[in-house]
Amino acid sequence: MEKVKIGIIGIGNMGSGHTTYLMNGEVPGAELTAVCDIDPKRLEWVKSKYGDKIKLFDDDDAFFANSGVDAVIIATPHYSHPPLAIQAFQKGMHVLVEKPAGVYTKQVREMNEVAKKSGKVFAIMFMWRTHPLYQKLKDLIDSGELGEIKRTNWIITNWYRSQSYYDSGSWRATWSGEGGGVLLNQCPHNLDLWQWICGMPKRVRAFCYFGKYHNIEVEDDVTAFVEYPNGATGVFVTTTGETPGTNRLEVAGDRGKIVIEDDKLTFWRLRESEREFNARYKGGFGEPECWKCEIPINGKPSWHPGITRNFVEAIQKGTPLIAPGEEGIKSLSISNAMLLSTWTDDWVELPIDEDLYYQMLSERIKNSTIKKG
Amino acid sequence: MEKVKIGIIGIGNMGSGHTTYLMNGEVPGAELTAVCDIDPKRLEWVKSKYGDKIKLFDDDDAFFANSGVDAVIIATPHYSHPPLAIQAFQKGMHVLVEKPAGVYTKQVREMNEVAKKSGKVFAIMFMWRTHPLYQKLKDLIDSGELGEIKRTNWIITNWYRSQSYYDSGSWRATWSGEGGGVLLNQCPHNLDLWQWICGMPKRVRAFCYFGKYHNIEVEDDVTAFVEYPNGATGVFVTTTGETPGTNRLEVAGDRGKIVIEDDKLTFWRLRESEREFNARYKGGFGEPECWKCEIPINGKPSWHPGITRNFVEAIQKGTPLIAPGEEGIKSLSISNAMLLSTWTDDWVELPIDEDLYYQMLSERIKNSTIKKG
Repeated sequence: MEKVKIGIIGIGNMGSGHTTYLMNGEVPGAELTAVCDIDPKRLEWVKSKYGDKIKLFDDDDAFFANSGVDAVIIATPHYSHPPLAIQAFQKGMHVLVEKPAGVYTKQVREMNEVAKKSGKVFAIMFMWRTHPLYQKLKDLIDSGELGEIKRTNWIITNWYRSQSYYDSGSWRATWSGEGGGVLLNQCPHNLDLWQWICGMPKRVRAFCYFGKYHNIEVEDDVTAFVEYPNGATGVFVTTTGETPGTNRLEVAGDRGKIVIEDDKLTFWRLRESEREFNARYKGGFGEPECWKCEIPINGKPSWHPGITRNFVEAIQKGTPLIAPGEEGIKSLSISNAMLLSTWTDDWVELPIDEDLYYQMLSERIKNSTIKKG
Repeated sequence: MEKVKIGIIGIGNMGSGHTTYLMNGEVPGAELTAVCDIDPKRLEWVKSKYGDKIKLFDDDDAFFANSGVDAVIIATPHYSHPPLAIQAFQKGMHVLVEKPAGVYTKQVREMNEVAKKSGKVFAIMFMWRTHPLYQKLKDLIDSGELGEIKRTNWIITNWYRSQSYYDSGSWRATWSGEGGGVLLNQCPHNLDLWQWICGMPKRVRAFCYFGKYHNIEVEDDVTAFVEYPNGATGVFVTTTGETPGTNRLEVAGDRGKIVIEDDKLTFWRLRESEREFNARYKGGFGEPECWKCEIPINGKPSWHPGITRNFVEAIQKGTPLIAPGEEGIKSLSISNAMLLSTWTDDWVELPIDEDLYYQMLSERIKNSTIKKG
């Protein structure tokens, strides 16, 4: 089978990582044949490392017209993901987009529609889905071991960032440059895992604080409350202003409780469903018998190379995607809903009012300290 | 010094416990000389155990007129705490009231005013304040070790109750009989410790669910979000519908993070204040140096006898109270605010609108399945 010719747009932190593992042969079915970046220094870095093996482009249009690649990895700033992906699909390329899918769902929905019509493979770089810890949690829930979910709680505050981090790029943590803060930059993986494993909430009431711990425009402290369609509730807490942070995910279900913390998964397993116990029990303070089970986690995450290998296999053999690109809208909907709930100081039902979100975001972009693009 | 003559009103679960340790001599400065209960079986139990040592009353008025006690422990149903305490103060008695202080703050404020005017000792049975674990947390915060608080988070869901528990008394979990659910019956200690240690919030946005896991009128599932005067935020999650529950209190501060879980207190101590680090640091992803410290917890809680001994010593020697009765209004304000926020589906500022709360509670009492006795 012929190798898939891959191009990368955006050779920043992420793009240079993709370049490296592709050139190291970590994705056997693919070869990196072209890259594109507006910064000559980034192209220089590619040239100095890999000589003439990779075609260099400093312009998107030229890249799309002349690179001759089968597939593209988009690793540019957030706002440009959907327009670049749309252009790529229109040129008949397969697309693997970095997270987040975009900044607002209106834009991402358009991308998803073009992707669908194109019939090309569309994936998103949610490489945390390759982590055996979260795969196991998903397995225990999908297989019914935990029973119906009652409550989810993720305290994910180990995203500490100093002011100097934010000062390192004028686009950082601005409405016009990034379009969001900790929810859009640090948390897309967590929000994706949360919905991938526990499902989408039906409404959100969130409390975001903007520039609370830093001189930035966007949110750096968030507590969100959600309700799920079955009546379960959830809490998501994140911030870049605390150190040392916490990363603790608890999911309570009808058959017990699971906690992921310190890279371990513990399942407190009820021998009998709580709902059944509740219906039959006639005593005073009883509870169902509970076993504390340490669940083995085998294997290692395959991270970015794993997602790219899966993307290439999907192109070559129709292998099902670990992270279909269309699913990027889900976590983005949740983070958009959290911001919208804060801005309107009210509940937000999902799917969100995309026009209202875009309008409120646009007001913030207009007043942003730096101008987009 | 003469022994303080103590009476107990209400010889249910709590009152019989107080009877037992007092008669076992666990409060050397006091003697139990009278009890009062409307249920002849409870008086019979006292008589069969202690013969004629204790005067028996089946009527409050007779108790207040003829018991001759110096101090009274009130261990009756929630609603009657304030009116009985007021009567006791008016008779010149010292009062130790069971938790909660009452059902609604309007009623409790009146009790506090009468208490203040009386000049008598007024304490409340917050015996969790005698626990070295929570005393240590308070010490680490009050002494500045943790620095200014940024966030609090208490998941306290280990209050599982079955339907049969609620069915064991027709007054249980009704608006007219108890005036609240998990917040009023199970959580007063947690709410008191939370405010005792971390301070009072300035506003509350809460999400209570009524009869979610049980056939009851009142709340059995609660998630509450709070803001503190300094801008810190907090989350409090509780329910009687999950098993096995969690009891995990996390407090993040400028100098690190403390977690109490599994009867252990762990302090992740920053060598340098985060705010100071943030101001001086010029690098990319750095964080202040952090030490994981296991903090020793010495001694045991003295529980109910400890609170009663302290109450008696306050009467005899002016010893400062561990849990002044006037402070009962604080945790009650928080739980009232949580219910009010749910009922109005909005923020509630503290101090709450007591008249509105009383009005909304009264509507629920009016429609309650049982009538208040």
